[in-house]
Amino acid sequence: MDNRGCFITLEGGEGVGKTTQLRKLADRLRLETNREIIPTRSPGGTVIAESIRDILKQRNREEDLLPESELLLFGVCHSQMSEKLIRPALARGAILLSDRFTDSTLVYQGYARGLSADFVRQINSFSCRGLKPDLTILLDLDPETGFRRTGLRAGNAENMQEDRFDSESMEFHQKVRNGFLAIAAMEAERFVIIDASGSIEEVHQHIWETVRAKLGLL
Amino acid sequence: MDNRGCFITLEGGEGVGKTTQLRKLADRLRLETNREIIPTRSPGGTVIAESIRDILKQRNREEDLLPESELLLFGVCHSQMSEKLIRPALARGAILLSDRFTDSTLVYQGYARGLSADFVRQINSFSCRGLKPDLTILLDLDPETGFRRTGLRAGNAENMQEDRFDSESMEFHQKVRNGFLAIAAMEAERFVIIDASGSIEEVHQHIWETVRAKLGLL
Repeated sequence: MDNRGCFITLEGGEGVGKTTQLRKLADRLRLETNREIIPTRSPGGTVIAESIRDILKQRNREEDLLPESELLLFGVCHSQMSEKLIRPALARGAILLSDRFTDSTLVYQGYARGLSADFVRQINSFSCRGLKPDLTILLDLDPETGFRRTGLRAGNAENMQEDRFDSESMEFHQKVRNGFLAIAAMEAERFVIIDASGSIEEVHQHIWETVRAKLGLL
Repeated sequence: MDNRGCFITLEGGEGVGKTTQLRKLADRLRLETNREIIPTRSPGGTVIAESIRDILKQRNREEDLLPESELLLFGVCHSQMSEKLIRPALARGAILLSDRFTDSTLVYQGYARGLSADFVRQINSFSCRGLKPDLTILLDLDPETGFRRTGLRAGNAENMQEDRFDSESMEFHQKVRNGFLAIAAMEAERFVIIDASGSIEEVHQHIWETVRAKLGLL
């Protein structure tokens, strides 16, 4: 490892445990390294990106948000995150952990919602000026299991994607899972797929071993 | 003219008189036709687009808005305007008049600010699902004259573009003028260039003759 930081993302469908696992990973990294650890989320992470998140999150509004607008708003978030949060932190040598990033945009807006995947890739690349995570951990889980897990926290508005997507059909969630597996296969050097069906501790242990290897920790 | 409406935009740099001329044109159309007349503006025109306008307009914030974010936010406005305001109004047979639209995005974000013009065109087309104005009136004016005019209303925060661009150099404004003239030449069938150096009444009369011909009014 050189002194430059490391940008790690957690991806996957609903109920796979991204938020829980990110918190545990951040705690573990703080315990076992003396690096600066920055947990963040997409959309969000900067003042402007959080205000855009509020627009994306708002429900039951009088005016629908069009799929095109949704994609572009995710782009705004990733643009602000990349230049105002991620790149400066990487330059300081920090380890950034993000709950979702541009891969979710490609999967949800492209594969699952049917916008052109090529165009979504262009928006992702444009908005981040080509920035990609150093490591992306895909938490893979059968959508039925994930859906049951999110059911346990219905009304918990912590996670925007889950707020918005809870009402989607199982077919949609299957498309999301297949989309993530497809892009993981296309960028095998960046992705590590982890089976998210185990206990929180089991999944954490797999994530920890992956991150430890990536960071070159003993 | 069939019963479908007509979408007319007023374009041009700062101080050319777009807002004033739009108001006069709307009044004249209300007087001389019994059509529904809808004046609007970009960015703006719908609840969501106006909230995005506020983000674009905000100054002296702690976090800069990146040029990429700015372009994408204009795209969000045009997406919401097109589907929630313009297309439904055109279907009713209304005449829409917009103070700026996607041509301003191409000129300001592309030609003048240096983002790829091809990419800005793609964003414009994507956000509007290919919608273009039926007629675009380009008010053309020497930037020095335009700048002197806006100087007369310094502190008047009515027009966002002027708020943001008043501090730009004359070279920038020259790029804007040249950009508008270049795209008008490329789409000569849609654009009518009107010399904006005359009096308010003279310019209004030119605009009115152009619009009357377009609408097939006697």
